[in-house]
Amino acid sequence: MTTITLTRPDLEKLLRIEDCFDAVTDAYKAVSDGRCVLPPVGYLDFASANGDCHIKYGHIQGDPTFVIKVATGFYDNPAQNLPSSNGIVLVLSAHTGQIEAILQDEGFLTDLRSGLGAAIATKALCRPNSKRVGIVGTGIQAGYQIRCLDNLMSEHALEFSVWGRSNDNMQQLSAKMQAHDIQIQMQPNLQELCENSDIILTTTPAKTPLVKSSWIKPGTHITASGADTPGKQELETDLVVRASLLALDKIDQCLDHGEVATAHALGVLPAENYVELGHVLAGTAPGRQHSSDITIADLTGLGSQDIAIAQVALGAYRQNRS
Amino acid sequence: MTTITLTRPDLEKLLRIEDCFDAVTDAYKAVSDGRCVLPPVGYLDFASANGDCHIKYGHIQGDPTFVIKVATGFYDNPAQNLPSSNGIVLVLSAHTGQIEAILQDEGFLTDLRSGLGAAIATKALCRPNSKRVGIVGTGIQAGYQIRCLDNLMSEHALEFSVWGRSNDNMQQLSAKMQAHDIQIQMQPNLQELCENSDIILTTTPAKTPLVKSSWIKPGTHITASGADTPGKQELETDLVVRASLLALDKIDQCLDHGEVATAHALGVLPAENYVELGHVLAGTAPGRQHSSDITIADLTGLGSQDIAIAQVALGAYRQNRS
Repeated sequence: MTTITLTRPDLEKLLRIEDCFDAVTDAYKAVSDGRCVLPPVGYLDFASANGDCHIKYGHIQGDPTFVIKVATGFYDNPAQNLPSSNGIVLVLSAHTGQIEAILQDEGFLTDLRSGLGAAIATKALCRPNSKRVGIVGTGIQAGYQIRCLDNLMSEHALEFSVWGRSNDNMQQLSAKMQAHDIQIQMQPNLQELCENSDIILTTTPAKTPLVKSSWIKPGTHITASGADTPGKQELETDLVVRASLLALDKIDQCLDHGEVATAHALGVLPAENYVELGHVLAGTAPGRQHSSDITIADLTGLGSQDIAIAQVALGAYRQNRS
Repeated sequence: MTTITLTRPDLEKLLRIEDCFDAVTDAYKAVSDGRCVLPPVGYLDFASANGDCHIKYGHIQGDPTFVIKVATGFYDNPAQNLPSSNGIVLVLSAHTGQIEAILQDEGFLTDLRSGLGAAIATKALCRPNSKRVGIVGTGIQAGYQIRCLDNLMSEHALEFSVWGRSNDNMQQLSAKMQAHDIQIQMQPNLQELCENSDIILTTTPAKTPLVKSSWIKPGTHITASGADTPGKQELETDLVVRASLLALDKIDQCLDHGEVATAHALGVLPAENYVELGHVLAGTAPGRQHSSDITIADLTGLGSQDIAIAQVALGAYRQNRS
């Protein structure tokens, strides 16, 4: 067997957003129903270079392959005109241990699966008549989330507005989305953005909550994906406590370092208000109950989605060749 | 920066045994003097396919690169005419996190560094006038250990004898060594092999001790490298207890699952009799004291040696190209 090597441009060509939703949805379910074996993440620290390396790996029972993802972040790289993120994804046979594919994705697969995951969570929990989407943040993840949600909820003819700290960043995101035939409005006032949205997607690495409870109307759905490590929080704790339903991608992770972590640590998070998202998607836990509910999806990132997206990529490559 | 990809044949051409000893010696020292960061080994089990996957990774402080090694063992593969071992080694920059090299070594680097490590331990602990080397086992590791020791102790004009369970296996090993200009005698009697050796190298996955204490003369040095997981043992516990000096490649690993593990578990391993091999090599712990001492090197395998050999390979590649 020859090992397949795919680069980022290969993967960008191979992976169509609409082909990935089923696998990423199943990846949520696999975590909640216990099919997914995900050992603790491996970690190396390079303090003197302001860098780190994470090794995520796992297997979804019954899958013919398993996946190992190596991701580095060296945060002084941009000063040398290098990207701060690097990485590689290995796909191995769960039957023979052979290395089936080396995906030199430069972080693309993680960016895409995060966008897909946010779109799936959002569609599952928002009001069916949702129309106006407010994006908080203008980074790479904002773009992926807009593209994925626009694709998944195309029949809604969603209207996108974005808030960012700088006009330049909003304009850049707008231009990027234009290239994908998606129009977005720039909204320099975060309060107005929140007050006028049916759906809010927060995508920032904020360490001080940006989104205030008083800005959020009944019926709003929020998908918060910025809090991926301890110390980050995008939503006011009051808002987290006020929500009718919190859908956590992985309960232990979210209680430890998700949007709900502060409320949990303070002992004010009602246990009856949160469920695991995979259970909602599988129909084994309730989702939104009333059109006036405020719902929040708290996404900290799942290794099972890295597995899923790598498998979709390899499958697409093989189908293209056959 | 372009990622360098090297295959097993590339690596076999690049790596000369004599160029690797310094790096592997330093890898022993780095573990003992605390320079080496080696997180716990990552592990995935594929029980239904009789397979497993180990992920070893680490960094030696001050090194410009760090290393991640993925190794799979799927023990039913030979029935499908596939090798049971597969793997890949990644070399990444400790300054930028970029992936400098992908080494598709198919286990070659592990085999070689184990052979190098055994030779280094053996030379450090054997009597200076050692001549006769007895090899227990005829597998891949037996071959690497013979080649590495012959190279490292070339001025001794060593004489090699081998014992194996089958004549065929002994003949095959003999033929392989002949191709490297090394003559080995076949010795179908293990007791005679042991009684007539100054140095004994044990290289089997035995779960019941093969080598009896009564067969070992004073002055013998033994390097035991078969016990790499719990339950394996090549040397009688009496022999382990009787030895004047036990040099362990990593004390915690060896007490857990090395040759000394049973003696330790039984509470009969004298704490004053064992030292860490890296300290012996650095001169900070005593080695052999008397020509009549029985010395044993207990090798369970060090991640630092995976790092070292990968770095030597990448260095050799770059030097060849410059």
